[in-house]
Amino acid sequence: MDRRQMLKVTAGVAAGLIIEVVEGPVADALPGAAEGLVALWDCFEVSLPGPADGNPFLEVTFAAKFSQGSRVLSVPGFYDGDGRYMVRFMPDAVGDWTYVTESNVPTLAGHKGGLRVVAASGNNHGPVRVAHRFHFAFADGKPYFPFGTTCYSMGFMGEPYETQTLDALRTAGFNKVRLCLMPKGQGSRPEPRLPFVKIPANDGRPSHFDAARFDPEFFRHFEQRVLDLQRMGIEADVILFHPYDGWGLKSMSAEEDDRYLRYAVARLAAYRNVWWSIANEYDLVKTRTMTDWDRHFQVVVASDPYEHLRSIHHSKVVYDHGKPWCTHASLQEYDFNKSEERRQAWGKPIVYDEIQYEGNIARRWGNLSAEEMTRRFWLATVAGAYATHGDTFLTPPGEPVWSDGGKLRGSSAPRIKFLREIVEGLPTAGLNEFVGAYYLSAGIEGQVYLYYFDFHALAEYDFPLPAGITFKGWLIDPFAMTRMELPGTYTGKTKGTSAVIDENVGQAAAGGTNHLVLPGRPGMAALFVRVGSSLRG
Amino acid sequence: MDRRQMLKVTAGVAAGLIIEVVEGPVADALPGAAEGLVALWDCFEVSLPGPADGNPFLEVTFAAKFSQGSRVLSVPGFYDGDGRYMVRFMPDAVGDWTYVTESNVPTLAGHKGGLRVVAASGNNHGPVRVAHRFHFAFADGKPYFPFGTTCYSMGFMGEPYETQTLDALRTAGFNKVRLCLMPKGQGSRPEPRLPFVKIPANDGRPSHFDAARFDPEFFRHFEQRVLDLQRMGIEADVILFHPYDGWGLKSMSAEEDDRYLRYAVARLAAYRNVWWSIANEYDLVKTRTMTDWDRHFQVVVASDPYEHLRSIHHSKVVYDHGKPWCTHASLQEYDFNKSEERRQAWGKPIVYDEIQYEGNIARRWGNLSAEEMTRRFWLATVAGAYATHGDTFLTPPGEPVWSDGGKLRGSSAPRIKFLREIVEGLPTAGLNEFVGAYYLSAGIEGQVYLYYFDFHALAEYDFPLPAGITFKGWLIDPFAMTRMELPGTYTGKTKGTSAVIDENVGQAAAGGTNHLVLPGRPGMAALFVRVGSSLRG
Repeated sequence: MDRRQMLKVTAGVAAGLIIEVVEGPVADALPGAAEGLVALWDCFEVSLPGPADGNPFLEVTFAAKFSQGSRVLSVPGFYDGDGRYMVRFMPDAVGDWTYVTESNVPTLAGHKGGLRVVAASGNNHGPVRVAHRFHFAFADGKPYFPFGTTCYSMGFMGEPYETQTLDALRTAGFNKVRLCLMPKGQGSRPEPRLPFVKIPANDGRPSHFDAARFDPEFFRHFEQRVLDLQRMGIEADVILFHPYDGWGLKSMSAEEDDRYLRYAVARLAAYRNVWWSIANEYDLVKTRTMTDWDRHFQVVVASDPYEHLRSIHHSKVVYDHGKPWCTHASLQEYDFNKSEERRQAWGKPIVYDEIQYEGNIARRWGNLSAEEMTRRFWLATVAGAYATHGDTFLTPPGEPVWSDGGKLRGSSAPRIKFLREIVEGLPTAGLNEFVGAYYLSAGIEGQVYLYYFDFHALAEYDFPLPAGITFKGWLIDPFAMTRMELPGTYTGKTKGTSAVIDENVGQAAAGGTNHLVLPGRPGMAALFVRVGSSLRG
Repeated sequence: MDRRQMLKVTAGVAAGLIIEVVEGPVADALPGAAEGLVALWDCFEVSLPGPADGNPFLEVTFAAKFSQGSRVLSVPGFYDGDGRYMVRFMPDAVGDWTYVTESNVPTLAGHKGGLRVVAASGNNHGPVRVAHRFHFAFADGKPYFPFGTTCYSMGFMGEPYETQTLDALRTAGFNKVRLCLMPKGQGSRPEPRLPFVKIPANDGRPSHFDAARFDPEFFRHFEQRVLDLQRMGIEADVILFHPYDGWGLKSMSAEEDDRYLRYAVARLAAYRNVWWSIANEYDLVKTRTMTDWDRHFQVVVASDPYEHLRSIHHSKVVYDHGKPWCTHASLQEYDFNKSEERRQAWGKPIVYDEIQYEGNIARRWGNLSAEEMTRRFWLATVAGAYATHGDTFLTPPGEPVWSDGGKLRGSSAPRIKFLREIVEGLPTAGLNEFVGAYYLSAGIEGQVYLYYFDFHALAEYDFPLPAGITFKGWLIDPFAMTRMELPGTYTGKTKGTSAVIDENVGQAAAGGTNHLVLPGRPGMAALFVRVGSSLRG
C-alpha cells in the first residue's frame, strides 16, 4: 500500500469495499483481519454491495460495531446509492480495532474486519471538545480558540464560487466555518442539487423533491467541502436546518426531518472537524415547535457515536442552552457585556456566531465597518467568549456575498487573524473574563492579562496587576496590527480611585510600576504576561 | 431712567432698595405706586434695611406677595447680610403688578410697591418648561432643545478659570450648563468660599463652617455666573447637593439641608434660566435616604413660585423619575436604546446628563474620543432624548479640566453645535423616536425624518418614507460637519425585506424614489423634510 493508497482510505472517499493489499513493514505489523491502516481521528470506511431495488433508504438498515478490547462503538451506516452500503468510522484510540456489520439484509450483516490505528500527525489534533468549562480544546489537548467565519452556501453553490471560497479560506486565518447542509436559494446562479431526489415539474406542479430518497451525490459533494476544510485545519460548523429554503425543505414531516438528520449524521460524523449546528435562526422556522428542536438534538445525540459539538443558533428567541444536549451556546448577539451572566447561567462556552456582517448592504445586519467587526472580536475575546465573522458587500449581479461563499471582500479578516495569533500565543488554555479593572480585560489570574480599551481613548493607565508578580507588557494596536514589546517589567496594584472629578486625575496616574502611557486614541489594547511564562508559537 | 439703569434693575443685581425715578414716556404710563420697569421673566428686586444683630438667617422671616388682578404669588425673600433683606421676583405676565412685604419684624412688614412689566425682547424667551410631554420649550413657546455641557465648579473656582469658562461658552454652542452650587474640592487651586460662614481652624479643630450662617458673598458671586449664562442664552442646571465635598457639606442635619435649599431657591429662583438639579450622583451621598431626597424635592417645590424644571442625577441607582415633583429624567447612562421604554415608564422628557466625558484621563468615564461623544449626541437625538457633554483631558498641574471649568480642550463641541443647528432648524417642536425603520431615526410622522446610521456603513438604503408625501433630502456627515442637499425629491415606502441572505441584496435596493446612495462608511446621517415645510434659522 503506497502513501497515495493510504490517503485514499484515510480521506474517507474510497469508492468501494476496502480490501486493501497492505505491503511492506506496516503490513507486516497488521493483525490478521486488518483491512487498512488509519490515523487516529481519521476516517475509516467499510463499503459493501447490497440491494438497489425498492427504496433502500427506507427499507435497509446498515451499521457496524467497532471494538477495541472491551470498548464497543455502534456506528450507523448509510446507503450511498447504486447498491452501495457504507459505514464510516473515526477511531479515537490507537491500536487494533475489529468490526462486524449489522443489517436487516442478510448479505450485508455479519461482515467482519479490522483496522490498525496509528498516531495522528500534522494538523490532525482530533475533534474539538469543550475544555475548562467555558473554552475548547482538540482531543489531543491542544487549545482551540474559535475564530470563525460564515460561508453558508459553500457546500452546494457550484463553481467558480466554491473554489473561490476555499482559496480565500486557505490564507484568511479563520479556523471555523458555518455552512449550511440544506441549500439556500442561489438567486440567478444555477439551481443547486438538493439532499433529496428532485422531481421535475409536471402536471402543473413545480419541481419538488422526494423526501424518502436522498441524493447521495449531493452529500458526496458537500462532504468534499468538509474534507477540504479539514485539510486546512478549519472546523466545519454544519447547519442542519434553516429557514431560507425555497423548496419546502423546512416543511417536511417530523419523521422525514429525523430521517434526514440520521442520514446526514451517519455520513458526516466520522469527519473529525464536524460540529452540529441544529439550525440557523431556528425561531424563524415557523413550521416547528420547541419540542421539535429538542427532539432534533436528541436524534443527533443518538446518531453520533463521537459526540461532536452541538449547538443551535437563534434570531430573536434565545434557546435554553442549559439543556444537556447543547455543548455550547451559539448566539446571534453582540451584547458582549452579558457574557459572564450567560456563562454562569448555562455553564458552557459562549460563541457569538452572528455578530452582524462586515459590508455595505442595505440590511440592518450587513454593513459593519472593518473597524467595528474587529472591535466586536476583541470585545468577545476579552469577555472570555468567541465570535464568528461574516462579510456582505455589494457584488456585481449574480455574484454571491462572502457569507454565502466566493470572494472575501472586507478587511477585518487580517485583523481577526492578528487577534487569533495573539490569543493562540498566550500561555493559557482559555481567557476567563477578569473583572478587576475599569476596562474590558480577560486573562488567567496571576498569569495573563489582556486589556481592550474599546472606545476609551485614554492617554495613560495604571494597570491593576497583582503585587509580587512581575509581567512583561505589550502595547497592541488591533486595527493597525502592531504589537510593541514594552521595555522593563510591570507589577503592582493601582491606587484606589474615586468618582470625584478634580484636576489631579492626570498627576495621580503619573509614575508607578504598573503605569503605561497610552496613545489617547480608541481601540487600543495591552497585554501583560507573567515573566517566566512563554508565549506559544 | 436710561437704558443702563433699566438693565441694572432687570439684571437683578441692584444693590439697594429700588426706588427708581422713572422719566419720559414710559414713566408717564406707570401707575402711581410703580417703582420700576422690568421685562417679562426678568428679575425685579425689593430690598429693605432691617436688623443685623442676632442671627437674621434663623430669626427673621421675609417675603412678599406679588399681585396682578386676582393672581397672587407668594415669593420668599432672604437675608443678604449687612442688615439687608431682599425679595427677587420674576414676573410671568406683562402689565402692572403690586407687592406687599411680610416679615416677623415689624419694620420689614407691610411695605408696598408696584412694577410695570413690559414684553420680553432679545434672547429672553422666559424659563424653559416641559412641552409636548417629552420635550421642552421656553415660556414664549419657542422650542428648546437641550445641548448641554458640564462645568461643575464655574461658580466658585476663581480666576482665571471662571472667565476662561465664560469665554469658551460664548462660542462653544451649548445651551445648558450643569454647575454645582456647593463647592467641590479644588486641589492645589485656592480654597473656595463656602455657602456658609467659614470658621478658621482653632483649638486643634480644622477649618469648618457654621451651617446656621450663610455667606451672602458666596451666593452673589455664584448668581453673577448664573446671570452671565443667562446673557448668553444658556440654561443653568444648578446642582444643589453632591457627594464631592471635603468640608462636611453633605453631612448637615435635615433641618440645615432644608434651610440651605430654601435660602438657595429664594436667591436664585427669579433667574429665568435656572433649573434645579437636586443632586449630582445622589446615590453616592451616603448620608441620606430616599426619604431625604424626596423631601428635598418637596422643599424646592414649596420654595419656588415659578416651578423651574426639577430633576435628580444618579450614579448607579436610578431615581424613580415618575414621582410628581420630577419634571424630567436626568440620567447618567448611555444606553440610548432604552429611551422609549423610559419615556413611557416616566411620561417625561429624558436628558442623558452624563454620557461620559470626552478626554484622555485614566478614568473609566473620562476618555471618550470626539467621535464617540459626537456619536452619543446623535444617538440621544434620534432616540427622541437629549444629552449633556463633558470634557476631561489631562491638564498641566493645577489647571482644571473643562468639566470643572476653564479651557475647553476637546473637539466634539463644534460637532454638537452642528447637530444643534440641524435640530433647531427642523420644522417641529421635538423629535419623537420613529420606529418604522431599521436604523435609528427620529421625526414627526409625515413631516420630518432624521436618520443616524451609527456603526452601519451601508452603501445605499431605501428610506421607508410615507407614500403620497414628497420630501427634500440631505446627506449629513456629523463629524465632518457637512450637510449636502440632495437633488430631486423622495417619497414612498421601502419594499418588504426579509432576513434571507442572498446575492440580490444589492440589486433589490437599486432605483426607487426613496433610494439613496450612501458613502459606505459609519457615522453618516440623512434628513428628510416634507416639501412645503420650511427649515428654521
